[in-house]
Amino acid sequence: MSARLTGPVRVVGTGLLGTSIGLALSARGIDVILDDASPAQLRLAIDYGAGRAASDGDQPEVVVVCVPPDVTARVVALELATHPESTVTDVASVKTQPLEELRAAGRDLSRYVGGHPLAGRERGGAVSGRADLFFGRPWVISRNDASQDRSVRLIEDLVLDLKAVPVDMTPAQHDAAVALVSHLPQLVASLLAARLREAPAASVLLAGQGLRDTTRIASSAPDLWVQILGANSRPVVELLRQLRVDLDGVIDALDAPDAVGSRRRIAETIASGNAGVARIPGKHGEDRRYAQITVLVDDTPGELARLLTEIGELGVNMEDLRLEHSPGAQVGLAEISVVPEVEALLVADLTDRGWRISDATR
Amino acid sequence: MSARLTGPVRVVGTGLLGTSIGLALSARGIDVILDDASPAQLRLAIDYGAGRAASDGDQPEVVVVCVPPDVTARVVALELATHPESTVTDVASVKTQPLEELRAAGRDLSRYVGGHPLAGRERGGAVSGRADLFFGRPWVISRNDASQDRSVRLIEDLVLDLKAVPVDMTPAQHDAAVALVSHLPQLVASLLAARLREAPAASVLLAGQGLRDTTRIASSAPDLWVQILGANSRPVVELLRQLRVDLDGVIDALDAPDAVGSRRRIAETIASGNAGVARIPGKHGEDRRYAQITVLVDDTPGELARLLTEIGELGVNMEDLRLEHSPGAQVGLAEISVVPEVEALLVADLTDRGWRISDATR
Repeated sequence: MSARLTGPVRVVGTGLLGTSIGLALSARGIDVILDDASPAQLRLAIDYGAGRAASDGDQPEVVVVCVPPDVTARVVALELATHPESTVTDVASVKTQPLEELRAAGRDLSRYVGGHPLAGRERGGAVSGRADLFFGRPWVISRNDASQDRSVRLIEDLVLDLKAVPVDMTPAQHDAAVALVSHLPQLVASLLAARLREAPAASVLLAGQGLRDTTRIASSAPDLWVQILGANSRPVVELLRQLRVDLDGVIDALDAPDAVGSRRRIAETIASGNAGVARIPGKHGEDRRYAQITVLVDDTPGELARLLTEIGELGVNMEDLRLEHSPGAQVGLAEISVVPEVEALLVADLTDRGWRISDATR
Repeated sequence: MSARLTGPVRVVGTGLLGTSIGLALSARGIDVILDDASPAQLRLAIDYGAGRAASDGDQPEVVVVCVPPDVTARVVALELATHPESTVTDVASVKTQPLEELRAAGRDLSRYVGGHPLAGRERGGAVSGRADLFFGRPWVISRNDASQDRSVRLIEDLVLDLKAVPVDMTPAQHDAAVALVSHLPQLVASLLAARLREAPAASVLLAGQGLRDTTRIASSAPDLWVQILGANSRPVVELLRQLRVDLDGVIDALDAPDAVGSRRRIAETIASGNAGVARIPGKHGEDRRYAQITVLVDDTPGELARLLTEIGELGVNMEDLRLEHSPGAQVGLAEISVVPEVEALLVADLTDRGWRISDATR
């Protein structure tokens, strides 16, 4: 399938996102021009196959600004001025602040369309780029009041050429959404994990999968998060305040656990969490529940592969797979999610083949 | 290997834990006597092979009380009185409150030793029992001031016969530990997930793995948690208050993101989370970091099995495996954790075999 864009596409900033965009577009035969404030970083991305250096007279169809949020507006303004025929977009994880800065500077924003791919980890760097980073991931497209339709269509083409899923949102909608699904979870995980710092080692040894899951993203790097949270502070603070109201309610209830209403307050807190988590879409964007089957797997090389091979022989597609191990255990639990229709068949077949299956987790 | 206990072992309460204990001990040839307030539940556990019904003249070596926390003390007291030669233990997920109730009732507690297996999920039920539920999991043993050494040794034997890992803690140490590693994460996940209830559907569609992980346990059932949190309210409230202090600091900082000290406060919050999460032991109780390799896997039956088969052929043991899918994507990312020593070999070999590998996540 040929690319939608004609090119050339100019990518400014060759970190994880810029390099990945360059790799993906180059692989589709589009002429990619790379630029970076760091000559060493730029050479690395070129060596890596993400594109070529700029030449005099380059007339990019699209410019993608892939620099940190706090310099995004400045670079977008420069690119709009330098390339008067080009449509300019960016990939910053906040959308309101760069737009406000551009407006404050009095820029004509008809050729600017904001963007944000929900892809990659916050960790990573220049050499970590990969052409398939955006496959199937949402990519928010945020037009502004002045954006031309032609420019919006070009950015949609860019997103589709990268095999991402375009999602139209206003800057305010976007910033509220990422505050909820990304920035708030990050802060909450960090606040929770911080409680472990001073804990006795014996306490931490009792940790199970629940603590591991709730704190995994607490290992994110501080520097980028200072920038992201600073640039999206208003919607994040609003959510934190709502959370604090609920937290105060829980503290009051547990301070007097036998008082009238305390048990109800705790039950409602857990039930509200039930209702919230049920809204997170599963794989493939569907909001359905999968059947989960837990299989005991010896902790030796090849055992999990054997299990999955036998599942594959049945023609059953796993929707999700999670391994659980315990300190000191020589056996692991493989929790396999499948569509409910195949559950009974799969359990029967695996049992016949000698696998130990439990339904304790259902 | 023969069992350490002689038996018989009496199990009171045939839910997930009681049934699992009965199945495991029966499999080791120990005579297990089952009892339950519900005759139907009892018959089910017997049918399931977890043990036999009580007979006149039974003289249990050990009684394991597996009833909800709020009735644990009452049942322990009854068993101590009914079986004057037996050592009695329990499996309640809080340890101070039942002990205080027993003391308040003026019981002789020399034959009582508290216990708590960190196993199973809070979900489950009678028919979900499995003999290997406790394999390699920590099992806290909480002796009281009056506990005889002989009784403590019997409970250690019980724990070892169930292939769990005995961990000695005082009731207060235990309750503080589970407040930290279990009860606090549950509440925090629920408070976070509750924010999703009223969110626009488009916002929730942007959810990634971070939100999924941080909210997974928010799907726990309210009724049991009301009981657990009510019975361990003091250490939980203490942790919630500490968290609120940090939360207030973050709110203040994000309220005035450009004020002096605000950025530092945010950076310290994220860094504290880094320090906390680093203390959680990994698989096999080791506190080491694994190398992570991300492989692209087509979303068709058998592809993941083929990958794991090829990893097995190399003799490489996966320490952990995590699948990541995106809405609409026909490709998944398998994030494989291995000991750092084999990482380079594995990457080279898988690449040779045509797998697409990324190091974007390292």
